[in-house]
Amino acid sequence: MYTMREPLRRAEQLFGDREAVVCGETRRTYAELAARVRKVAGLLDSITDPGDRVALWSANSDRYLELFVGIPCADRAIVPHNTRWAEPELAYATDDAGAKVLICDRDPGGLADLVDTVIRLDTGQYDELLDAAPELAPEVGPDTLAGLFYTGGTTGASKGVMLTHANLMANAVHAQLAQPVLDDDRYLTMAPMFHAAGVYAALAVMWVGAANVIQPAFEPNETLDLIEGEGVTCAIAVPTMLAAMLEAQTARARDTGTLRWLSHGASPIALELLKRADELFGCELIHLYGATELSPLATIFRHEDDFLDDPARAKSCGTAPPGVALEIRSPMGDTLPAGEVGEVTVSGPNVMVGYWNKPDQTEAVLNGGWYSTGDLGYLDGQGYLYLVDRSKDMIVSGGENVYCTEVEDAIYTHPLVLEATVFGIPDDQWGEAVHAVVVPRDGADLDEAKLIEHCRVQIAGYKVPKSVTIQAEPLPKSGPGKVLKRELRAPFWEGRDRAIN
Amino acid sequence: MYTMREPLRRAEQLFGDREAVVCGETRRTYAELAARVRKVAGLLDSITDPGDRVALWSANSDRYLELFVGIPCADRAIVPHNTRWAEPELAYATDDAGAKVLICDRDPGGLADLVDTVIRLDTGQYDELLDAAPELAPEVGPDTLAGLFYTGGTTGASKGVMLTHANLMANAVHAQLAQPVLDDDRYLTMAPMFHAAGVYAALAVMWVGAANVIQPAFEPNETLDLIEGEGVTCAIAVPTMLAAMLEAQTARARDTGTLRWLSHGASPIALELLKRADELFGCELIHLYGATELSPLATIFRHEDDFLDDPARAKSCGTAPPGVALEIRSPMGDTLPAGEVGEVTVSGPNVMVGYWNKPDQTEAVLNGGWYSTGDLGYLDGQGYLYLVDRSKDMIVSGGENVYCTEVEDAIYTHPLVLEATVFGIPDDQWGEAVHAVVVPRDGADLDEAKLIEHCRVQIAGYKVPKSVTIQAEPLPKSGPGKVLKRELRAPFWEGRDRAIN
Repeated sequence: MYTMREPLRRAEQLFGDREAVVCGETRRTYAELAARVRKVAGLLDSITDPGDRVALWSANSDRYLELFVGIPCADRAIVPHNTRWAEPELAYATDDAGAKVLICDRDPGGLADLVDTVIRLDTGQYDELLDAAPELAPEVGPDTLAGLFYTGGTTGASKGVMLTHANLMANAVHAQLAQPVLDDDRYLTMAPMFHAAGVYAALAVMWVGAANVIQPAFEPNETLDLIEGEGVTCAIAVPTMLAAMLEAQTARARDTGTLRWLSHGASPIALELLKRADELFGCELIHLYGATELSPLATIFRHEDDFLDDPARAKSCGTAPPGVALEIRSPMGDTLPAGEVGEVTVSGPNVMVGYWNKPDQTEAVLNGGWYSTGDLGYLDGQGYLYLVDRSKDMIVSGGENVYCTEVEDAIYTHPLVLEATVFGIPDDQWGEAVHAVVVPRDGADLDEAKLIEHCRVQIAGYKVPKSVTIQAEPLPKSGPGKVLKRELRAPFWEGRDRAIN
Repeated sequence: MYTMREPLRRAEQLFGDREAVVCGETRRTYAELAARVRKVAGLLDSITDPGDRVALWSANSDRYLELFVGIPCADRAIVPHNTRWAEPELAYATDDAGAKVLICDRDPGGLADLVDTVIRLDTGQYDELLDAAPELAPEVGPDTLAGLFYTGGTTGASKGVMLTHANLMANAVHAQLAQPVLDDDRYLTMAPMFHAAGVYAALAVMWVGAANVIQPAFEPNETLDLIEGEGVTCAIAVPTMLAAMLEAQTARARDTGTLRWLSHGASPIALELLKRADELFGCELIHLYGATELSPLATIFRHEDDFLDDPARAKSCGTAPPGVALEIRSPMGDTLPAGEVGEVTVSGPNVMVGYWNKPDQTEAVLNGGWYSTGDLGYLDGQGYLYLVDRSKDMIVSGGENVYCTEVEDAIYTHPLVLEATVFGIPDDQWGEAVHAVVVPRDGADLDEAKLIEHCRVQIAGYKVPKSVTIQAEPLPKSGPGKVLKRELRAPFWEGRDRAIN
């Protein structure tokens, strides 16, 4: 397997003069980027030891990209901080990782006390230090730790996912084998780079000498302007971003004709959203499913846009790419045949080494090279994966299993619905009752009774929400755009023994 | 990295019903092929121990393909015998590898005495044994030895190149990243499968669920009929095959419109040949350069057909694919800048583990993960490789490597030979032809035909000199007495600018 030095090594040798990264006013060639990555090693050499952790707390930028590659290639481990974390969460990750250095684009506040050195990106300090640093390229191997990637806060305490150079390069291989970035592509990064989705293709883009176009912070009109202005050919979006882009494109159409493909992942998506994306962008739509623990790709559904009128296949998240093995397993660990629902289990060189300093939690999910995702699903006869739900989101009502995704899909087919989420709330009669929280489109007059009626004609009675909260404010989300269902659900369960976790 | 089980594992899960292999009247699906590969393990389990070597001496066939994958996946090492070898060469490789089993499609002759078990492919024995064998899938790892691939030796004796599962899978990754076989491709194997070129794409073809169309023995009219009849989309040929195909296609044109690309490698090619291939087939032409020790891909020149009127670039053998690092080094081991001629040196997960039982010869070519090819060349500013000569004393004739020392050794066994030297001279059909210059002992009456006959019983036909210059005057020598081969060779190559390619 490879180290993270390989993509830039090749790009510098073959495509030194090509545009490597575009961010705002900054444009750098591969020769320049490769030199800066070696200077990151020179800079860290003077203030840390090999293997030390370096926290990065920053919005997307060209410098984020060079640090994402540069810190691991300096034989240090990167610890990307979620910019939406509150102070206690930031402190937790910094402390848990034992970070020696914090590189940040804002006032570090109390975090400064937790590290030996703070380097500011927003004051010119980083650039000055980098200019003065020597170029170094210390020895790293495929099994060298590249970083600790703290999992989003949707469940329990945050865990540092240990990914090696080989893990992240395996993902680059798998993504390229399934859905190649080409050497003349211009790839747009709009998702936050502290998340797996934000850096999903960064290494592959460098490997082939394509251009990384980086949006500092997602704003749908700016995204569309970037696609038009930079001639973007491919990009990844999370569903909430895609929804916002569709609204913005409907309001004012840009020329997005350069787009070859648009991929989406990180959370379930409504079929209606895909149909609108197909209409408005007309490029290949690609569904990705994965987990930080998988570096992150587990399955990919290419040409999803060709299946939007095939309601069965359209709900799939695709097949495992070459290099990734996927099985559905029973609670006893047996491999289940096609059609049977069980836990999605994955092996391959992309599977994390473990959780940092958490051997028990590592052991709970890693077994002989196989990672248990905690997601429930089944495979069809062609190896296409269908997720039925995340096990923790399943509602048990009157003895019947209700998978939240199915209910959400029903609600999303209503034309006035912008966002929706479904979870179980306590119910004296049924144990749990299905509850929905819905955000209507701007100014739309959405009525609870009518929405329930809308669902009743689509899904079984026990799956239909018993109650609906209709609210104007957007649903709370984690960094990668995943709805924080727990946060919405918690007040309903206050003071009760939790029937489900 | 991966094991050789990965491509069929995926193909069976995703494309079980698709056509995996076509050879003559035989057509098998991926489900069938995967089951047969497990039966190969079941068959070998009863007659060998893990790690044992199994020699395969056979023409191309669907069974060659299942053994090429099945023997390594049984945790045994395959030893492919060159079907052109003379008896002493076959015996040497069988003995050197310590093969316990010989699987062959012909009378094993004296080889039967060198192994514990002979299994005949041509008598129905193999099929009977396979039918009766249980399906097994023993544990193998990426670093498990997959095979010993014998290649000519600079010091006379042939060397067993040790390639692991990871080596061969790395090549599949590199080839796919540079020049992907697609899932609806139909790939034609016409080169002998005992050669790296013959199995170059076999694993990648399986990985994506494409079809392997196998030609038992090259015959240009049959090749063209296969392309037309089977709708072949891609293939690899050695230049002599390509030349023969062009002759046959000129004589009687077949519909080859399904061809997406045609790659060539393993020996020098004339620009005129490429121009005719471009005219007659009109598909993408791809130049490959590599070595058995590299599993085998080192560089690839895609869309070579776009550069046939660019005499400078047309002489290149392309760039290293993602995953392969290539440097030009001085005799002192320093990396040379673009434009300077030195030894082509390669690193990556495709580099062999070493030569079987030959630690000194391994050490001579492997240094810190870098393999010294023995070829001299330079890189241009875009990383394109240009070969200028071989530092190894080797001839490439019809895609086969001929080590001069081995031929010289055979000549020297003749009692009337005083001095002899061997080198390659230009040959329109074979690229290079083996030529010898011989000085007889005083007054001896040495005859060209008899000398050639003397060689034929000792070495493979392609190694036997095609022509011999017999001269009375001593061979020119340097101060320390080394034969100045270059001086003798130069007149034959005058006016040619492509000594090798």
